[in-house]
Amino acid sequence: MPELRKDPVIGRWVIISTERAKRPMDFASTQERPEPPDQCPFCEGKEAQTPPEIYAIRPSTSKPNTPGWSVRVIPSIKPILRIEGEPNRHAKGMYDVMNGIGAHEVIVEDPRHVPDLAGLPVERVREVLQATIHRIVDLEHDPRFRYVLWFKNAGAVAGAGRIHHTRSQLIATPATPKRVKEELVGARRYYEDKERCLFCDLISQERQMKERIVFESAHIIVACPFASRFPFEVVFFPKRHHCDFSAMTPEEVAELALAMKQVLGRLNAVLNNPPYNYLLHTAPFRRHRTKGGRWKTIEEDYHWHIELIPRLTRVAGFEWGSGFYINPTPPEEAAKYLREAAVDQPPGAGQAEPAKSGAAH
Amino acid sequence: MPELRKDPVIGRWVIISTERAKRPMDFASTQERPEPPDQCPFCEGKEAQTPPEIYAIRPSTSKPNTPGWSVRVIPSIKPILRIEGEPNRHAKGMYDVMNGIGAHEVIVEDPRHVPDLAGLPVERVREVLQATIHRIVDLEHDPRFRYVLWFKNAGAVAGAGRIHHTRSQLIATPATPKRVKEELVGARRYYEDKERCLFCDLISQERQMKERIVFESAHIIVACPFASRFPFEVVFFPKRHHCDFSAMTPEEVAELALAMKQVLGRLNAVLNNPPYNYLLHTAPFRRHRTKGGRWKTIEEDYHWHIELIPRLTRVAGFEWGSGFYINPTPPEEAAKYLREAAVDQPPGAGQAEPAKSGAAH
Repeated sequence: MPELRKDPVIGRWVIISTERAKRPMDFASTQERPEPPDQCPFCEGKEAQTPPEIYAIRPSTSKPNTPGWSVRVIPSIKPILRIEGEPNRHAKGMYDVMNGIGAHEVIVEDPRHVPDLAGLPVERVREVLQATIHRIVDLEHDPRFRYVLWFKNAGAVAGAGRIHHTRSQLIATPATPKRVKEELVGARRYYEDKERCLFCDLISQERQMKERIVFESAHIIVACPFASRFPFEVVFFPKRHHCDFSAMTPEEVAELALAMKQVLGRLNAVLNNPPYNYLLHTAPFRRHRTKGGRWKTIEEDYHWHIELIPRLTRVAGFEWGSGFYINPTPPEEAAKYLREAAVDQPPGAGQAEPAKSGAAH
Repeated sequence: MPELRKDPVIGRWVIISTERAKRPMDFASTQERPEPPDQCPFCEGKEAQTPPEIYAIRPSTSKPNTPGWSVRVIPSIKPILRIEGEPNRHAKGMYDVMNGIGAHEVIVEDPRHVPDLAGLPVERVREVLQATIHRIVDLEHDPRFRYVLWFKNAGAVAGAGRIHHTRSQLIATPATPKRVKEELVGARRYYEDKERCLFCDLISQERQMKERIVFESAHIIVACPFASRFPFEVVFFPKRHHCDFSAMTPEEVAELALAMKQVLGRLNAVLNNPPYNYLLHTAPFRRHRTKGGRWKTIEEDYHWHIELIPRLTRVAGFEWGSGFYINPTPPEEAAKYLREAAVDQPPGAGQAEPAKSGAAH
């Protein structure tokens, strides 16, 4: 019997279709023809082929836009939004319009032509997170922006094109995205009722139920959501309640780096390097906003997290039109595969079996 | 300069990316290998290869599950939801769950192996609409169901698989889909403020602005939405205010059939037979619900319509995570292409230039 599950944050129903149940081997990995590495503009030594860098982690002895960096942030050469101008919100009849103002940056995650974040040393992943936080904090100073979305497209199917050099993107927008707003509304409603964070309650319940946990360490927990829309969807949560990704402590950054490397490595092992997207959901920019109204409770009721979606299934008419997703892989099974794929872990961190690591926290 | 546009119904922002602007020739049609017609289970004469028919339009002299029909409705052989059982809504900790109860039917739209609705005579399209309404009305009698989604997946990319015999699907669900709920909420909020239907106001504004109109006849209007998420997205509206698709008059049914055949034919001409999905948004089932509460105003504030989405672009991480879509084709340009592609129209119906047909209404 298929099961209908409701997302507790935004109220979306998902059909967990046990009768069409799919195991990892049922998802064929699409063959892709990558660009030859010598044509990659993101590699060390090709700095002149990109726009000048906005930020880089590099020794103080090296100059901008020269080799020597470990993480490098550059403007997108095909920006979705333009940096110059004012949003100029206005009406067109009964419609709302504004100019496409925003920032669009690319975070090159390693100087070498490595295809995936999982292939980087954990220290480099930590630097990627550091650089991301640095850019988010800087973009928040621009009063035109309301939100920044940090995301990765890995593999051509997920939107990465043909250049397989590991990188992620930042887009600062003049409006809060709808999906984030829905979560903010759902979290606030829960908080108003219970005076507790919805996500903290979810995390606590997942730690009790155990069956959907993929990875757990002192500060980070990774689980397949109860109402997963897609096979092998996972979410990274900080255990400490905070609405803002950029407020992570150094310990949290280090553990998130480990969790991301671990979980992406397991995903690659279980699903044979699938295309995937991940994306950050964090509090909208608050620096330039009044503290009243809808900003009043956000620090108490929202809890940042990263959604990771392997791109294994096609979204058809039914899903688009209804927002009713059909997922052929129960998240409990997906989590089991991802726990059992745990390999090469430093002792004491990210145990596959959450029951074992539970005692430490 | 790209432009940000807000969907007036559900508040979603869309980036109309003029700098990445795409014309029809930029969208390569994916090559597909269709199943040979002699292996198609939907053709006349193969009735024994499908589950027994639920409904068919056929002469009274012909027997069920034999040749002679013009439209045939059968249960899906891979149902997403199961017809037997009770929804049994229950909690799992803080989560909401119910059994995957529902109906999943396939509407075979012609006895011949025709690949697309646009290739059918308009009289057959009318029969398809008739059969669809008949099934929706019947499914509404089942008190377990809250909604029925009618949709089409055309082309493998859009989810049709390899059998290219024109057909659509009906899925009755025990919960109202989130996308429809969002529209109901947006429409109700507008109505509470203005005591007018949001969609009626949209239609009236589009008829004044003209630039996004694709097709117009006495009862039906087809336009590219102001905040189109996808290139060449179009919406079919009845001009007469009604929340319920199944309440169409015979004249409306006949004109919708003409509009669908026309617009799909133009889409095929402009985009070289693209994969596409269309899907009905109509009022949830009201027969078994109380008239109070959220059902009070639905007949006044909601207005049924059909969304059509050609599947030309890939949805990447940014879109999934934000609900912030990037559309490289301004809807005004898409509408112009679709108006100019108008061919083979019976005189007086569906003029390409809305200004000319405006006088009649």
